[in-house]
Amino acid sequence: MIRVAIAGASGYTGFELLRILCAHPSVQVSIITSRQQKGQRIDDFYPALKRHCDLVFEDTDAEKLAASSDLVFTALPHQASMDIMPGLLDRGVRVVDLSADYRLRDPDVYGKWYSAHRTPELLKEAVYGLPELYREKIRTARLVANPGCYPTSVILASAPPLWRGLIDPETIIADSKSGVTGAGRGMNLDVHFCEVNEGLKAYKVGEHRHTPEIEQELSVLAGRQVTINFTPHLIPMSRGILSTVYSNLKQGVGAADVEEAFMSFYSDELFVRLGSRGHLPVSLQVRGSNYCDLGWRVDERTRRLIVISVIDNLTRGASGQAVCNMNIMCGLPEDAGLKEAPWQP
Amino acid sequence: MIRVAIAGASGYTGFELLRILCAHPSVQVSIITSRQQKGQRIDDFYPALKRHCDLVFEDTDAEKLAASSDLVFTALPHQASMDIMPGLLDRGVRVVDLSADYRLRDPDVYGKWYSAHRTPELLKEAVYGLPELYREKIRTARLVANPGCYPTSVILASAPPLWRGLIDPETIIADSKSGVTGAGRGMNLDVHFCEVNEGLKAYKVGEHRHTPEIEQELSVLAGRQVTINFTPHLIPMSRGILSTVYSNLKQGVGAADVEEAFMSFYSDELFVRLGSRGHLPVSLQVRGSNYCDLGWRVDERTRRLIVISVIDNLTRGASGQAVCNMNIMCGLPEDAGLKEAPWQP
Amino acid sequence: MIRVAIAGASGYTGFELLRILCAHPSVQVSIITSRQQKGQRIDDFYPALKRHCDLVFEDTDAEKLAASSDLVFTALPHQASMDIMPGLLDRGVRVVDLSADYRLRDPDVYGKWYSAHRTPELLKEAVYGLPELYREKIRTARLVANPGCYPTSVILASAPPLWRGLIDPETIIADSKSGVTGAGRGMNLDVHFCEVNEGLKAYKVGEHRHTPEIEQELSVLAGRQVTINFTPHLIPMSRGILSTVYSNLKQGVGAADVEEAFMSFYSDELFVRLGSRGHLPVSLQVRGSNYCDLGWRVDERTRRLIVISVIDNLTRGASGQAVCNMNIMCGLPEDAGLKEAPWQP
Amino acid sequence: MIRVAIAGASGYTGFELLRILCAHPSVQVSIITSRQQKGQRIDDFYPALKRHCDLVFEDTDAEKLAASSDLVFTALPHQASMDIMPGLLDRGVRVVDLSADYRLRDPDVYGKWYSAHRTPELLKEAVYGLPELYREKIRTARLVANPGCYPTSVILASAPPLWRGLIDPETIIADSKSGVTGAGRGMNLDVHFCEVNEGLKAYKVGEHRHTPEIEQELSVLAGRQVTINFTPHLIPMSRGILSTVYSNLKQGVGAADVEEAFMSFYSDELFVRLGSRGHLPVSLQVRGSNYCDLGWRVDERTRRLIVISVIDNLTRGASGQAVCNMNIMCGLPEDAGLKEAPWQP
Repeated sequence: MIRVAIAGASGYTGFELLRILCAHPSVQVSIITSRQQKGQRIDDFYPALKRHCDLVFEDTDAEKLAASSDLVFTALPHQASMDIMPGLLDRGVRVVDLSADYRLRDPDVYGKWYSAHRTPELLKEAVYGLPELYREKIRTARLVANPGCYPTSVILASAPPLWRGLIDPETIIADSKSGVTGAGRGMNLDVHFCEVNEGLKAYKVGEHRHTPEIEQELSVLAGRQVTINFTPHLIPMSRGILSTVYSNLKQGVGAADVEEAFMSFYSDELFVRLGSRGHLPVSLQVRGSNYCDLGWRVDERTRRLIVISVIDNLTRGASGQAVCNMNIMCGLPEDAGLKEAPWQP
Repeated sequence: MIRVAIAGASGYTGFELLRILCAHPSVQVSIITSRQQKGQRIDDFYPALKRHCDLVFEDTDAEKLAASSDLVFTALPHQASMDIMPGLLDRGVRVVDLSADYRLRDPDVYGKWYSAHRTPELLKEAVYGLPELYREKIRTARLVANPGCYPTSVILASAPPLWRGLIDPETIIADSKSGVTGAGRGMNLDVHFCEVNEGLKAYKVGEHRHTPEIEQELSVLAGRQVTINFTPHLIPMSRGILSTVYSNLKQGVGAADVEEAFMSFYSDELFVRLGSRGHLPVSLQVRGSNYCDLGWRVDERTRRLIVISVIDNLTRGASGQAVCNMNIMCGLPEDAGLKEAPWQP
Repeated sequence: MIRVAIAGASGYTGFELLRILCAHPSVQVSIITSRQQKGQRIDDFYPALKRHCDLVFEDTDAEKLAASSDLVFTALPHQASMDIMPGLLDRGVRVVDLSADYRLRDPDVYGKWYSAHRTPELLKEAVYGLPELYREKIRTARLVANPGCYPTSVILASAPPLWRGLIDPETIIADSKSGVTGAGRGMNLDVHFCEVNEGLKAYKVGEHRHTPEIEQELSVLAGRQVTINFTPHLIPMSRGILSTVYSNLKQGVGAADVEEAFMSFYSDELFVRLGSRGHLPVSLQVRGSNYCDLGWRVDERTRRLIVISVIDNLTRGASGQAVCNMNIMCGLPEDAGLKEAPWQP
Repeated sequence: MIRVAIAGASGYTGFELLRILCAHPSVQVSIITSRQQKGQRIDDFYPALKRHCDLVFEDTDAEKLAASSDLVFTALPHQASMDIMPGLLDRGVRVVDLSADYRLRDPDVYGKWYSAHRTPELLKEAVYGLPELYREKIRTARLVANPGCYPTSVILASAPPLWRGLIDPETIIADSKSGVTGAGRGMNLDVHFCEVNEGLKAYKVGEHRHTPEIEQELSVLAGRQVTINFTPHLIPMSRGILSTVYSNLKQGVGAADVEEAFMSFYSDELFVRLGSRGHLPVSLQVRGSNYCDLGWRVDERTRRLIVISVIDNLTRGASGQAVCNMNIMCGLPEDAGLKEAPWQP
């Protein structure tokens, strides 16, 4: 059994990690931490977990975490991961970090969109944890930076046509819609039920921090610097992201080329499902699972490609993908603990 | 008092017309019709209307409608309006038609997206009922074609920069999100609570019938043929549309030009409110009202303009706008019966 | 024009008061106050109110309120009303208080369920503002205690059979279900969208503070001390209360007696609508209105009466009823400003 | 591997059976049937199941079902189970029936609440599949009648105090609230998103068909004929039931007696969790699981007991319990395939 720890286990991604890990056949959760809930039993805090986990929240301490685990999931707020990361790695523990702190390779870009990076030397070895793109590097990584929820949905939607050179990289517009768990469990008026329910809004238009993360990976795929528009929207539902990604097709590219690109790019992937016969995915069909389902349309009137991708933001967009990364790092089957079908409805 | 009739009053737009008209100071609803509910009292069908309206649904008959009313709202399914339209106009009744039958000026375009038009001769005189664009023509029109919900939100978002020539018309992408009342009150699995709730989907991508309607009006504003991408999405809420409209700014155009364009275009409009100080509107802030609220961002990184527009799809997107058109046609104050503040929450 | 003030206008009941009063034909809102939002324009705080109200939140000061208004609505937290009540009344201003501070006639009961009452001398003259029970006293009252949302729904459901002696008062059980606006606009985890959505809970079972308020009024109606069970539940929706009220029928009482009791008790009431032909009301049919809709069943198998009542908790359960009380106090038509039909859907 | 079939697999309970059984370690689903979807692949009908099940819906034929399975789940509409039940049992197949057809032991009661029973001879051997009450009989049963969703929640809430004689059986009132999946996947206006959303209603008050089922089992527990009030309500959410069960405590009974009754009654139960330290359960904490979580309050003011029970209506209220019954029938661990923690949020 692999001993794993969760640093910062009191939020929604922490709960989702516990839900998955408690049923994982090769893992034992040895320790969970939370600054705010220290001393409380997890199943008092989340009665749903009664009979599944009776751990008590402890302080977030690198030494303690390292002593009791082989691998640590850090689900801490941005900036907070940096405080314990060197201490964990120095003690030989491997880490899957769910924060944004190690996703951007360039510390200056991090500095511009977040704040000054305090452990820039670790950025070189951190591996961006999108298995479809970086599986081999993940296997041996000490530090895996688990992708953001929006980036996961946008990058997987864009990779095949971009990699194949079917679209003009400068024309990519990603219009994303997310459920409210994406905003976390912290309290502010924006997540008050009555402010969200029966409403709809765009937010951080042109300035959301997931923008450079998406651009970094699309640039790698395109082989050149890519700048995009990314617009997140808040939807009155708890879980799920649907991204609608627009781009201009290059001259001569047809529907068959696009289909072929998707089919071959994802032919061996366990967690990407392609819409058969023109089926466009709905967010409900992946809920609770690690799937990213994709569908697309070629609009010959405008010569644009429209790709629709859906994920569960807490599972594929955070904790499920983190467990998948752990599986790869530890030589386990990639879908260990992630085999359940999505929930309906 | 103006005597008005509602042909096809049993759906959500019919109810919304009744709600507004029952409290309208200069109007009396004389007759309501419904093929399916014929013989039933409206306040048995909609208990909400008890003590507000006790009319009984009658057959949809042009002669009867004309005999008892000065103006008729036709809220019938597409194609069905054509059956009674000549009979109404010939008898001197004026009509606000909420179907799509008289919105497209070119019967061939109608034929391509809907089906063959049976009264193409009326298309010439029909006026597209978007007051901000056609107020003067509406005043004297016999037949006003009330705009679709999506087109209302997209056209109002695009008109100022397009009219001023600030954006490239060929780059317009409208990503729209709508509540479920937009799908009507008819039953099918797509509107089952459990299929909609906690889910999210795009539909009719590249083929929604509101596309040619939007393109027709954007073409008039641009002074040339415009082709766009329009992608509707279904959101788990009852009312509201938010459209996110992307376009490329022409060289040299800056944020001040855009602001000036919106300010001057809508300076005298009662039912368009502009976001002050960069405020982006949320759909909740217009619920139950005839307002279209607009906000925008200039993204200098990509040189794109992103406009956000919100409306209540049943009010500004259908029945409220229809009443506004009636007010203009009858020389009443444009906001008669439409003065209430939006509902929160 | 009657000049009115709203003390504590930043919450949901404050907004709802403004929404109604801005369209009221005989009223001008002269001043609004909020400790937290002081200095902010209401239409920046609530963009929905743009073009309807441009007042700026001021400090809650009795002298200032009295100087600029004939009647004050106090929508302050419990306990806070007491601070300004003497100051308002002494200056000759009449008050409709939306807090619980003046609803309980016995200061000891208030002390037991809330905390020590600081102005017990005012309890004697305060009138419980349920028009169906206290209309005559309301007309001349200086201080009207606007009923709680749950008590409004339970008392109106119980009054006819209790007054007529058709049921055993000791057997009353009120099982109530409320939307989330009832919890106010303040932030805590209980109103986080993701904690409420897709969930359901009972809360404060056997200890909710509306219990003594309901019992006080039911005791008056029964002519003896009545003790009941009242269980509130939180429902994933924004507005609306549905109360299911159970009681044992006295021997010999039949369905016709019950029907007659309801018909005669509410025969002249503008804001109570009875289900015709056995129709049971749904909460949606009163949304945004001041109606209380009632329906009932006599279960001969168990000899129990089950009454279903629905109200909009923000309108009939708070601000609409407050405006109705103001109308009565000022000699206006009881439904002035409250004539609009409910919203659907 | 046990070969199981699902007759009537196209509804929500059918899907939930498939979701659970596809991940069950000791089971293989051999055949699924649906009259309406015959010939369609399940993963085209439910894209969520892609890569989990690729069976094709077949006709519902007893011979075919028997030939390819050891145990059949019948998830057919009421009345339809009877058509194939003799054919299945005669061929030696064991059955878990999710309809109501074999839950009531008295064919006259069935006839009164449903319609005439066509296979009354099977009622004698059918076992009511609530494991907490009938585990031993379930082990050897040929035909298990899987309990209704509401009855499961009400019976489990009532059993301990009733069995111990702590409450007066004649005073039981069960006020239940259910999500919309309980109404099934068939279409009618009652489940239209816009009719359900933001609304709340009681339905079938005093006449719901689950009433005699609850009374049958409470009568067994009480050792005498029990008549109750049961009132179901529809809540705007997809999954979950919360029942609030009221009863009068017998003289001398105190809170400690109640606690002891619950503790001892459910001490060895895998799928009943009791609220520790007065915790009242919320429906969200059991979602997707087979748990019934219970909490209670003794109200000394009224001498009543209020029990709150929550279940997931599709899992514990239908398919999860059916799988649990299968496990018991087949000598498998009772929680085989049912070990996952509930979903949050």
